[in-house]
Amino acid sequence: MTKRLERGSTEINKLCPGGDQAVLKGLGKTAPDLANYVLEFIFGDLYHRDGLELKTKQMLTVTILATLGNAKPQLAYHINCALNIGISRSEIIDIMTHIAGYAGFPAALNGVNTAKEVFAARDEKVLDKENETTKE
Amino acid sequence: MTKRLERGSTEINKLCPGGDQAVLKGLGKTAPDLANYVLEFIFGDLYHRDGLELKTKQMLTVTILATLGNAKPQLAYHINCALNIGISRSEIIDIMTHIAGYAGFPAALNGVNTAKEVFAARDEKVLDKENETTKE
Amino acid sequence: MTKRLERGSTEINKLCPGGDQAVLKGLGKTAPDLANYVLEFIFGDLYHRDGLELKTKQMLTVTILATLGNAKPQLAYHINCALNIGISRSEIIDIMTHIAGYAGFPAALNGVNTAKEVFAARDEKVLDKENETTKE
Amino acid sequence: MTKRLERGSTEINKLCPGGDQAVLKGLGKTAPDLANYVLEFIFGDLYHRDGLELKTKQMLTVTILATLGNAKPQLAYHINCALNIGISRSEIIDIMTHIAGYAGFPAALNGVNTAKEVFAARDEKVLDKENETTKE
Amino acid sequence: MTKRLERGSTEINKLCPGGDQAVLKGLGKTAPDLANYVLEFIFGDLYHRDGLELKTKQMLTVTILATLGNAKPQLAYHINCALNIGISRSEIIDIMTHIAGYAGFPAALNGVNTAKEVFAARDEKVLDKENETTKE
Amino acid sequence: MTKRLERGSTEINKLCPGGDQAVLKGLGKTAPDLANYVLEFIFGDLYHRDGLELKTKQMLTVTILATLGNAKPQLAYHINCALNIGISRSEIIDIMTHIAGYAGFPAALNGVNTAKEVFAARDEKVLDKENETTKE
Repeated sequence: MTKRLERGSTEINKLCPGGDQAVLKGLGKTAPDLANYVLEFIFGDLYHRDGLELKTKQMLTVTILATLGNAKPQLAYHINCALNIGISRSEIIDIMTHIAGYAGFPAALNGVNTAKEVFAARDEKVLDKENETTKE
Repeated sequence: MTKRLERGSTEINKLCPGGDQAVLKGLGKTAPDLANYVLEFIFGDLYHRDGLELKTKQMLTVTILATLGNAKPQLAYHINCALNIGISRSEIIDIMTHIAGYAGFPAALNGVNTAKEVFAARDEKVLDKENETTKE
Repeated sequence: MTKRLERGSTEINKLCPGGDQAVLKGLGKTAPDLANYVLEFIFGDLYHRDGLELKTKQMLTVTILATLGNAKPQLAYHINCALNIGISRSEIIDIMTHIAGYAGFPAALNGVNTAKEVFAARDEKVLDKENETTKE
Repeated sequence: MTKRLERGSTEINKLCPGGDQAVLKGLGKTAPDLANYVLEFIFGDLYHRDGLELKTKQMLTVTILATLGNAKPQLAYHINCALNIGISRSEIIDIMTHIAGYAGFPAALNGVNTAKEVFAARDEKVLDKENETTKE
Repeated sequence: MTKRLERGSTEINKLCPGGDQAVLKGLGKTAPDLANYVLEFIFGDLYHRDGLELKTKQMLTVTILATLGNAKPQLAYHINCALNIGISRSEIIDIMTHIAGYAGFPAALNGVNTAKEVFAARDEKVLDKENETTKE
Repeated sequence: MTKRLERGSTEINKLCPGGDQAVLKGLGKTAPDLANYVLEFIFGDLYHRDGLELKTKQMLTVTILATLGNAKPQLAYHINCALNIGISRSEIIDIMTHIAGYAGFPAALNGVNTAKEVFAARDEKVLDKENETTKE
């Protein structure tokens, strides 16, 4: 394991526990080099850099992905990460609302829809856990 | 003057003194409705909203414009505004660097080039002022 | 209710009966400000403006959304609105065909596919109504 | 000369007198096939099709190019064509204003800027002609 | 049948046996002119041109579609065509990996995902055929 | 100097002699991390990978940049690199022509225009050298 890969694993796991293994197992089978670049460059270089705080970086990532408008799986992933590190649901909606003016309403509306799906999936998980606890 | 136009004028002038008059005189002659929407919707609605701090909003605006990649005049304008409210030059470069991973290197490199032009124009203004002072 | 919201409700309901309530109930729960901006700015300002006729505006909206290429839900919505106000199915296909030259064939082909889905959904609704009538 | 090339020449010359020769001489030297496709496919096929009127087609072309946001020379060309066939300056500005909601304000603002440059160039030509007449 | 349509049919059938009939039956019912342009212009003109070899053209098509990022059905279709004419699966993944640097990681990752779906569908077809043979 | 930076320098210099120093001196002053990533990731990783030949990679890079449509400085740079390693001028024009079908005519036309500028600058350099020789 290179030093950058190690660094990248540490950074992605802060955003999403077990994130490094998910990348290596999912993407790694089909596109091993690309999987390494995700961990080494995106997380080991960009997320490891000084200068911007983690929360700021994560807000930027969500903003870029919603602006691109054709990166739904990545946007859902990073909204989830954002919530994991303490960015609130209403801040996610604030980002999408701000985007309306610059990238147009469709980008904003599709961003809100992706956020709603992520919120609902998280609520369901919590419900499932509560149900499990209740059953015991 | 509507209340939203007034609110928008206040908000844009925080980012760029005299910004409201510049919009109304520049754009307003050719496209008066669009000029009003810039002040009313972008600044009177979006920038006036609660939720995200001004600095955060301005970082998002710069990020969206650099991601779009075809909004150079607006990007230069908003980098200038960002510097006016205390976002540092190195933070602007940090934003562009982060963009490289998600929107690709060309968007990042063109963002840096626009930033360099804004930085140089500001340095020149300062130099001009210093020269004026020296002459006296 | 602000005057612009009222105006926006009137405009959206011309395109799609009950459209204002759909926006407020659907989007309004998650992103209330964005829902208001949709009604106030998109419909209360842009659709309420003089200058272009409603049919022309609606053809432009369909054209923009098909050109963007990543706004499928909005494109389907506005194709439906276009048909509601008397733009014909063949005019929708003419728009997509014209787009092929400027935004490329994929944008045109995906626009046709979205149109086909809207056409089919409308045919089904008509069939359902006919069946109901027959049953009586 | 193929039949489609002939048809395309007729169509482009309606929009811009001498347009066919401009394409063949300008683009034709470097990219002869592409020059032919412009005349044959864009003008001989798309502009020759029935279904939408010429003015409508031209409004769509202007809308698509302003939405794309990175097609400035083509946008300027087609705004000029639009004015040649009787679309008014204020209709061009109305199109750009409508675009703000769907493709974002930067696309709209850059569209207005391109329009302003086209308007100014046309005004200058008229002035030049008037001056010539005065001199005689 | 025009000469270009015939030529286009020959070219598309090299990439995908029966491709011409699929276009005419699928797209042709809703958008007959656009279906003709696909065969005549894309395949009869562009794919019939000299200059670049078929394999090179097909790699370019896959590259353009993955870069656009909002052309999934077309990308899946052309990855299939690429494999049909002897471009390897690992070359497809190499293309997507190269794209990461220029169009950003989301475009690359979504390209890999589409490729995976195409690969899986082809594997299933082979399995189905083997099962049929075993049953006999 | 890291191993990847060294590798990247070797790769970029194959495409453009002295390319590494140009990146470090130009971009490196304003955005040192981004300059390193260009050399390390784009050239040290992507261009150093096995799988696709250098000429193929370079054709893909030109294709991606012309498709993006808002990366003119990078497109000019990489057309120059392409010519340096033996890709012909007519192959560059073939790429742009192919792009017309998938990314639309504006992307193709702007790609041809950038290519023309690169061709002219190279012709001028050759002329300058010939003039110098004649003077002696």
